[in-house]
Formats: sequence, structure tokens, C-alpha cells
Amino acid sequence: MQFLSDNAARVHPRVWAALQAADGPDVPYDGDQLSARLDAAFSDLFGRDCAAVWVATGTAANCLALTTMVAPHGAVVCHQDAHIEGDEGGAPGFYLHGAKLLLAGGEGAKLTPEGIAAVIDPIKSDVHRVQPQAISITQASEQGCAYRLAELAALSAFAKARGLGLHMDGARFANAVTFLGCSPAEAATGADALSFGMTKNGAMSAEVVVLFDPAQAQLVRMRRKRAGHLQSKGRFVAAQVLAMLQDGLWLDNARAANAAAAAIAAGAGARLRYPVEANEVFLRCTAAERAALRAQGFGFYDWDQETARFVTAWNADPGAVAALARAIAAL
Amino acid sequence: MQFLSDNAARVHPRVWAALQAADGPDVPYDGDQLSARLDAAFSDLFGRDCAAVWVATGTAANCLALTTMVAPHGAVVCHQDAHIEGDEGGAPGFYLHGAKLLLAGGEGAKLTPEGIAAVIDPIKSDVHRVQPQAISITQASEQGCAYRLAELAALSAFAKARGLGLHMDGARFANAVTFLGCSPAEAATGADALSFGMTKNGAMSAEVVVLFDPAQAQLVRMRRKRAGHLQSKGRFVAAQVLAMLQDGLWLDNARAANAAAAAIAAGAGARLRYPVEANEVFLRCTAAERAALRAQGFGFYDWDQETARFVTAWNADPGAVAALARAIAAL
Amino acid sequence: MQFLSDNAARVHPRVWAALQAADGPDVPYDGDQLSARLDAAFSDLFGRDCAAVWVATGTAANCLALTTMVAPHGAVVCHQDAHIEGDEGGAPGFYLHGAKLLLAGGEGAKLTPEGIAAVIDPIKSDVHRVQPQAISITQASEQGCAYRLAELAALSAFAKARGLGLHMDGARFANAVTFLGCSPAEAATGADALSFGMTKNGAMSAEVVVLFDPAQAQLVRMRRKRAGHLQSKGRFVAAQVLAMLQDGLWLDNARAANAAAAAIAAGAGARLRYPVEANEVFLRCTAAERAALRAQGFGFYDWDQETARFVTAWNADPGAVAALARAIAAL
Amino acid sequence: MQFLSDNAARVHPRVWAALQAADGPDVPYDGDQLSARLDAAFSDLFGRDCAAVWVATGTAANCLALTTMVAPHGAVVCHQDAHIEGDEGGAPGFYLHGAKLLLAGGEGAKLTPEGIAAVIDPIKSDVHRVQPQAISITQASEQGCAYRLAELAALSAFAKARGLGLHMDGARFANAVTFLGCSPAEAATGADALSFGMTKNGAMSAEVVVLFDPAQAQLVRMRRKRAGHLQSKGRFVAAQVLAMLQDGLWLDNARAANAAAAAIAAGAGARLRYPVEANEVFLRCTAAERAALRAQGFGFYDWDQETARFVTAWNADPGAVAALARAIAAL
Repeated sequence: MQFLSDNAARVHPRVWAALQAADGPDVPYDGDQLSARLDAAFSDLFGRDCAAVWVATGTAANCLALTTMVAPHGAVVCHQDAHIEGDEGGAPGFYLHGAKLLLAGGEGAKLTPEGIAAVIDPIKSDVHRVQPQAISITQASEQGCAYRLAELAALSAFAKARGLGLHMDGARFANAVTFLGCSPAEAATGADALSFGMTKNGAMSAEVVVLFDPAQAQLVRMRRKRAGHLQSKGRFVAAQVLAMLQDGLWLDNARAANAAAAAIAAGAGARLRYPVEANEVFLRCTAAERAALRAQGFGFYDWDQETARFVTAWNADPGAVAALARAIAAL
Repeated sequence: MQFLSDNAARVHPRVWAALQAADGPDVPYDGDQLSARLDAAFSDLFGRDCAAVWVATGTAANCLALTTMVAPHGAVVCHQDAHIEGDEGGAPGFYLHGAKLLLAGGEGAKLTPEGIAAVIDPIKSDVHRVQPQAISITQASEQGCAYRLAELAALSAFAKARGLGLHMDGARFANAVTFLGCSPAEAATGADALSFGMTKNGAMSAEVVVLFDPAQAQLVRMRRKRAGHLQSKGRFVAAQVLAMLQDGLWLDNARAANAAAAAIAAGAGARLRYPVEANEVFLRCTAAERAALRAQGFGFYDWDQETARFVTAWNADPGAVAALARAIAAL
Repeated sequence: MQFLSDNAARVHPRVWAALQAADGPDVPYDGDQLSARLDAAFSDLFGRDCAAVWVATGTAANCLALTTMVAPHGAVVCHQDAHIEGDEGGAPGFYLHGAKLLLAGGEGAKLTPEGIAAVIDPIKSDVHRVQPQAISITQASEQGCAYRLAELAALSAFAKARGLGLHMDGARFANAVTFLGCSPAEAATGADALSFGMTKNGAMSAEVVVLFDPAQAQLVRMRRKRAGHLQSKGRFVAAQVLAMLQDGLWLDNARAANAAAAAIAAGAGARLRYPVEANEVFLRCTAAERAALRAQGFGFYDWDQETARFVTAWNADPGAVAALARAIAAL
Repeated sequence: MQFLSDNAARVHPRVWAALQAADGPDVPYDGDQLSARLDAAFSDLFGRDCAAVWVATGTAANCLALTTMVAPHGAVVCHQDAHIEGDEGGAPGFYLHGAKLLLAGGEGAKLTPEGIAAVIDPIKSDVHRVQPQAISITQASEQGCAYRLAELAALSAFAKARGLGLHMDGARFANAVTFLGCSPAEAATGADALSFGMTKNGAMSAEVVVLFDPAQAQLVRMRRKRAGHLQSKGRFVAAQVLAMLQDGLWLDNARAANAAAAAIAAGAGARLRYPVEANEVFLRCTAAERAALRAQGFGFYDWDQETARFVTAWNADPGAVAALARAIAAL
């Protein structure tokens, strides 16, 4: 009964089928017919012209997206708990050639204009200080919380007013869209570039950099190659992406994961550290309680000294979910 | 009848089977049971202690390997036709933070001690000149030629004498081993690190950085994550690698590809620009001749104005191979 | 009556004399006879073998020193108010190729083992998190405070225990040594590399990277050239350095500056935000009070909304100092 | 009788005077009154709006200028003997974050459209190859040759047609202007940015990045700080620059140096490897001949196995020059 990570989950059968269907000869790299369909597929999905560049990891997607906004001498503001800050092994520093991450606070690991302003307003506009050039937010956040449309609108207006780019890390974008019950375009309000995650949501190794300014695509494609992320049999990445979009599989998968998280959280009451708005449950529990849960066969991640994190996936087992919910209620 | 690229070939059924067998829950990133087996598998293969780090692309493998030898202020000597020089979108400059590639000549796209010395001997040993720190060779070379053991021994001795690291780009290492009829260890004589290619040889997206000094593994693992190459479902990459090693599949596949290339070359005579020692045939032919071949349904790559390149893969179709051989002979 | 910055002060007459004495023909870059004397001069000063590499700016000195300790994938812990964090335009990110600065707190802008531990202890030792490799402290600190020998000993022990390098930004090292009344070696206790500042202390444009492990000198010299900091008429930088060391000029200058700061602070009482232990006085005062001081002809820097910073130099005018002290007491 | 390097020459008395006149208190960094005059001074000099950013070294000037034209994933074409390729310790790779130098040939170390086209025309326009973004030429060249106005016009037209920026390394720009007998603007025909050298020509440590698109100035100023090249007492660099421009001192100095070189070359006949069009004389001579010259007290640089390089400076001693000319004629 594993709730360690959605990365531990299986690949969806329809993704498998698409992978195998892609296994005929085609042009290498991204010259294949599947890769060629991505721009249109995402333009359809978002109802506006956009470019879509596949990569195999979320770290690569985030960092490539940020290269369209942040110069080596610039900075990007992110939440202090953001994945790019704490979980990517310094990749932003690598891809951005030494640009800085400026860390802001905010409840639920979400940024607010006020929180960002508190960080950047004191920065004198001179060459001695690194100047902010972009904001990076995570939808849903590292604490499993979704930005509401009004929150996004406020951030977008703030970014525009300050001349900052807006990047959205959407490793769990599907979960946010599902929770918000809105369109993908709405859930990405204001974003100049979106890292559209699929691996945690049923793919094998597929993420997409969605560029709402298609003119940036060539830069990202050159940088993808330069980073060694242009797979020679790219058709297999594109196939995963298309399978996930087909008939809304990405939303179905996220819906299942979200529902499982909600079921787990149902009886957790005050133990919940954050609202459960995606597929993660952060539970206050002591070391003894964790040991008890593990003794019952539940796997999970020790978020910090007082918090256990349970992550659900598209294929969450209903029995395991119910058992976990009961076990939590019984703590 | 496609001879454009071995990257256009299909994934081997045993790789598919391994991928699917890997599709149970396991620890994310490289904490899974399959990844854990790689060091031992390659140590067995090479008969000495080594570390093995999977990545999805040859560019990433080459560049990560080079980070163990070349500082940002240093240089690596490679052939002027090397993949790292001309086909990786500047990735070495990215991964090595601006280190230089020093270009040497050499027949068959192979380096020699003399050729390297001609490039590095004139470099004064002072801070004004970028100093060489490593040599990178390609086994088999960009022109489909294999370094003989004596050639490797000479290069290895030269590298040691000059205090230079030795990297081997083995995107087609299997083809070289097969051609040479030697052990993997022999074919990698002198290498401090080897990019062991599998994607061109029947995998979907799997390459391995083999480090003959296992103490370098942690550095490479940190840099892999930093480059966004640590896939979250890494078990699927490891599975491919292990499947390729299992029962010598990598050698069987290379043998088939080499045999197809040899068959194509058999009637080519003086048209061959380079000896055919792997799975590539470089054929002198005019624009009119190329058009004629294409009119017969053969796909291939225009290497340069006067050369067509045909690449064979593990699944080369005997009928197509024979047809191409006849068509070439008939030119 | 200018107290804006010690960088606004004049060049000392003995530095001028040395500059002019250096104006004969000599070998370019650092091949001259003056540059050749630096290693010995600093080895004498510190009573141990060290290497000394001149540069023109403190930013270059700090960053070159850090390159001996911090890899691109690593991190350096510094105070949140450190010069390398807030006043060097992102230079550490540039020189260290994207390495991170980890920010710790601490009174008087000084780090403590506890403060550092609070930042680095939560960092899991895996590839997902950037790992600390060095500590950078400032002697005297950005708030004009000097590390006591016991504090340095504690930091040194901590650094060794954790396997971290220790860098000391000594832009105002002379002021700290003077205040502490100790030897240069004592004031640099534990440092692996020291940025020894002279520009703020009477030179024109001269700083020294002092390497207590002389084996690092070649790396720093290569990196200095690579950063464009190897001046072609380097003898003029070396001349300044030697003039500053000659007969303790650097200490005399610092003594004069410190004394002026102490005189200004004498009547400031509770207005002092930090102890005055070097040549800086941080004074709590309102906007109206600042206006009043400026109306009397005093120039200074607005440190933050409630603080004015007064910096004294080697050539502080006694009359101006006394006048400022009176004006402050009269606020 | 030293002809080793113009960097070995003395600082001009009027530069000394300007340095000392600058030694009053002023705002640090480039906030001083002298730095503020540079943009206008160079706009006057070139008869068009330009921005001028001082630095202390030619390497920094070249690399900062190139950052306005070349992205990390791009390349700059330069002559194979260019200073940025062979004499800057890899600084372009550092400042440009791994961008490539593409090397072209050309007589007199000068590039031509044909020579550049030979290098860049074979580069396929795809992500696998690093794409050229700029050309860098040296006026006067590394072999002491000056680009004629027609040559510059051709290069400029070529650069525009190919969408490439044009950088001019003017470490010896003054010598070229003097030789050509044209205006500074003419000698910089087509350049988007010029590294205007002064250190070799009588200054102590002053070079200027001249940006013919002033909109680039802020980028260069941020990058200068980030590279640690914003000196805190910048007024002393600006003072040198203004002194060199005052009353045409830069041209007078170059004229003297050029005349000395011409005098040395006068009797050299077929020994001259390159036309003498600046302040450098490249002389074919055997090891024995060199020894003979050195025995007579002449200092010079061994350019290569068969060539001695003599460099003259603004203060070339007429007696020494005449003696050298005689000695050469007598070889």
C-alpha cells in the first residue's frame, strides 16, 4: 500500500499502447510525425496559439521554460518551498548560467503579489543587486494547493506591472485543473510558459514546455538539444504526450488521484497541514504514529519532523485508500 | 527501405518486455531495484570495478562523462568530425561551463597521438592559453571506423604521459566490439569514462556513463540531477539497459547491423569513402545517383555534397539490404 | 564632509609614490618583479606559506577565492547581508557557474556554527538538494563587526567537522585586525582563502586573494586570466599592494579610519544599531534627522529606512569628524 | 632596448596627471563625474550616439562586448589567430557561458566574407549545430594589419546579410586609425561594438567598450559588475580614458609607435612576414639571428619558431629604434 510518490505509480495502459504504436520507423529526434502534432494539440487545448516542446523530466521542463525569461544576470522569484529551489539539484543555476532564485513565503506554498513585493521592493534598481526578471509559481503547489483564478489574475497583473515573466510549474497541473473545475487555459492564467507534467499522472517519462509565445519555441528547442534532452527516438516521448491528451486521459487520471487523496483526507480533520486540493495529503503525525502506520503496511514520505506526506496516483487502489483513511482516523 | 539512421529503427522486443516488466511500483528516481543492479552489471561486463549511471541520451552521457575530466577553464581534444563538436548543439560548452574543444584531424575520424600532439604541443603552458585536460575519442568513429587495440594502447599511453583524461564516446560501442571481436574491456582500452550507447542499438532511450574510476560516480549523479536527466521513473531506463546486456543482446543486435552494412558495402568498391567497420556505409555518389537511389525507395542521409550515408540497424530487413546492395552495384 | 564610502576617499601618497616608481619597463601581466614578491610578502605577513594573487576588485577576489572551494553543483553558506549575496551583482553565480548561496542569519552580520547548522542540517544528503561545500564570512562584517578569535576558532572547527571550506571576505580586514589588536594570522583563523582588501584602505584598485593552500594558486591564476582580471600592466597593481604592506601602512590607515568612526560613535549612544568595531557607524535616525544632517553638509548612505551609514577612511578629516560627532549628539 | 610588448611601456605623463587630478572624493563605482562624461566623449569622437563603458583589461572589454551579440547557445566567428581565441585563457567561453568560437583563416590575420562563409555555410540550420551569431574582427589585427575601409564595408554588408553582429577588438585601434588616416568612425565601419584599447597606447589600465547601440549599455553595465570589473574607485579608470582622448593624445601616441615600427621595418625587406601597418614588426629570423639580436641587447618575443615579434610603444626611444633597424639590416 504505497503512497510514497506518484512517480512510483504504473504507466497507464493507453500510454503503453501509444508507445507501442509509435514503434515504426520515423525520422529521428523531433522530426517525427507525432512530435509534429504537439503544437496544434496544445493550441487546441489552450484555445490559443502556443508551442509545445517535449522533454523527459520536470526539472528540464522548468529550467528550459525559465530560459525564455531570465538572463544569466537576472533572478526569478519563487516560493521558498518550490521544487526549483529545493528539489532540482541546482538545475536552475545550471540552465540559467548562475541566475538567482529569490525566495518568498506564502501559505500553502503559494505566492502572492504582496509576498513577492516584500522580496523585490527592497532591491535597489542598480547593477550591484541582481534584478528580478520572472516569477515562478507551481500549480498545484508543493503543498498540494491550487491557485484560484482570482489569485492567478492578481499575480498576472502584478507580473505585467513589474515587467516580470510568469512561469508555471505544472508538474501536477492536471490535478489543479481537475480540482478547480476550470479550463486548462484558466488554470494557467497569466503564464508565459507552463511546464505541463505528465509523468506523475500516468506517463512513463513525458513533460511538455508549453510556450504561450510561440516565438520562443526555437530558443527552447536549441536549448533542449544543448542540454542533451532531445531524445533521438523522440517519437516515444511525443506518443506519451498525445496519449495523455487523447479523450482527456490526463484529466481522468488526475480525477482519480484527487479523489483518492480526498478520501484519505476525509477523516484526517485537524491533522491536515494544508487543504487537500490535488493528490497530496500532508498529515501531522508523531514518529510513533508514523511507525504505527508503517507497521500496517503503508508507505509514505517523511516531509519533515512532524509531517507525513501521502501521494495518490491515477491507479490508487480503492481498498488501500480506504484502509489508509481508516488507519488515519484511528490514530 | 529506410537507411537514414539507426535512431529510426524499432525498439527490440526484449527491451519492450523488460520495460513492461519494470512497470510495478518501485522507488522513484534511481532508488529502484533495477538501477541498483547497474554498477555490478557493468563491473561484470568489464571485469573491473566500475560505476554505471544511466541517462536517456548520448549527448548527456558524453557531457556528464567529460565533467569528470575537464574543468571550466580547460579543454578537451577531439576529432574535428566528432559528435561532441558538430552534433550536440554546443552541449559540451554548456556542461563544461565554457571549456574548449580543441580539434584534431585523423583518418577515419580517428585520433592519433601524433594528431593530438600537433594540436597541443604548440600550446604554451601559461594562463593565456586554455590548457588541454582530456582527449575524447569515438568508438566506432563518426566515419564508422573502429580503433584497433594497438591504437587504443598508443592513445592511452599518450594520454597518461601528458596527464590527460581519456573519454570514449561509445554511441556505437557495440558495433566496434563486434567488429573487433574483442572483449568490451579491450575495446575500451585506456578509457577513464565510456558513454555506452544503447539507443541506436535497439533500446528506446537508454545510454550509460561507465566510470572506470567509481569514485567519480557521485559527481556524475549530482550533475545528472542538476542537468534534469534523473528521470523520476528511472526504473524504465535501467530496465532497458539490463535487457540489452542480458544474454548479449547488445552484441547480437550490433552483429546484425554490422552484417547488413557489410552486405551493402560489398559491391560498393571504390565508392566507399571509409572502411566499413561498424553499421555505417559512406558512399561517394553524385546528386544524380542519389536521386536515382531515392527514386528506388531508399532513404539515407546526405553526409556532404558528394557522400551519402547509409546506416543499418539491428532489425535491418535482408530484402532491403540486398536490394540496396544491388542498386549500389548498378550505379 | 563626506562619509558616504571609504571608496570615495583619496589614494594614499605612499601608494602614489609606489605607482610612479613602478613606471619603468617590465614584463607584462604578472611576470614583473613586483608581482613576483607577493607570495613571499604575504607568507611573511601570515607566518606561513601562502600564495597571493592580485586583482583590482573585491568582487573578483571573493569569487576567485570561492572557486577553490565550491563546485558548480555546490553551495556556499553566507550571511544574508553578505556582500557576495547582495552587492556583487550575482558575481558568485557567474564565477561559480551557478552554485548556490545559502543564507544564514546572525547578529552583527556575523555567522555562527549554530546559524549555519540551522541552514544546512535540514539539507538531505542526496542529489536532489544542492550540497554545501564552503562557508564565507566577512571580517569585519557588513555591519562593521569583527569576529573574535574564539568565534573564528568555533567556525573553523565547525567547517572542518563538516568538511566545508572557509572563505573570509576581508574587504575591511585591516580594520578588523586593528580593532582586534591581534596578528593578521589570528584575525584570519581558520580561513582557507582570504580576500585581503586594500582599495577601501588607501589603495587605488588593489585587492589580494591570499591562499593558505598555495597549491590552489595555479587554479586561481588561470581563473583570473579567464575572468579578464589579469591586467597587462600588472606591476601597477602589485606596486599598490607592496606599498600598503610596507612599514604597516595598511594598519596605520585602518587605525586612523577606526579612530574616526569611534569618535563619531562616541556620542551616539542608543542610536548605534551595531557595535562600532571597524570604520562604519550605523545610526538610527529618522528621515527628518537625516535631512537635518545633510543640511549641515554631511554626506552618508541611507542603509535602510531607519538607518544612516557613515563610513570613515584613512584620511578622515578631524574637524569633520568632530563636527559630525557634535551634530549626532545634538540630534 | 625593449621591444617585447607595448604593455611593457610606461604610462604617459598626461595620463599620470589625469590620475592625480581625479584624486579628490567622488561617488564610488561609476557614479563619479568623470565616468559620466564618457558617453558624450565617445559620441563626439564617433559622430553618433554611443555608450562607453570602461574596464581595466582588453579581455574584459572583448567579452563584455560579445555578450551583447552572442547567446550561450550561439557562436562567434573569429580569425584562428585572434586574441579571443588564443590569448584570453578561455574568457569568451566564460563570459558567453559556453558559446563557441568558430575559427576562420585569412591573410594578415584578417577575416574576409569568403573566409567566414567557408566556415559558416556548411553549418546546417538546425538545433544539432551551434549557430553563428556574430563576427569578431581585430583592428589592427594580431599580425599588425589594418582593415581597409572597403574591407570593412564588405564585412559589414556580409554580417548584415547574414544577421550577424559585428564586434571589433580594437586593442590597437589607435594604431589602425593612424595608419589608415581616416576618422575613428570610418575605422570602425560596421561595428556594433568596439573594444577601444588604451592600455597598450599609454594608459595604465583602461579600455572602453563602445556600444554603437546605446540601448545595450545597461546590459553591459550589469555584466561588468557581475564580472567584478566595476572598480570601486572607477574615477581613476575614467580619468585615464578622458586623458587619452584629450587633444588627440591617443592618436599622437599611436603615431609615434607606428613610426617607430615603420623605421624598424624599413630595412627588413623580405624578412617581413606581414605588412607593417601598426606598431608591430614580425621578422623572419633563425634562432641564431635571434640570439645575435639578443646579444646586442634587443628584447623581443618569439612569435613562432621562425618569427620574432618587435612591438613599439608611444615612448619608443629613437636611438634604440635606429639601432634595431641597423641590426636587422645587418643580419
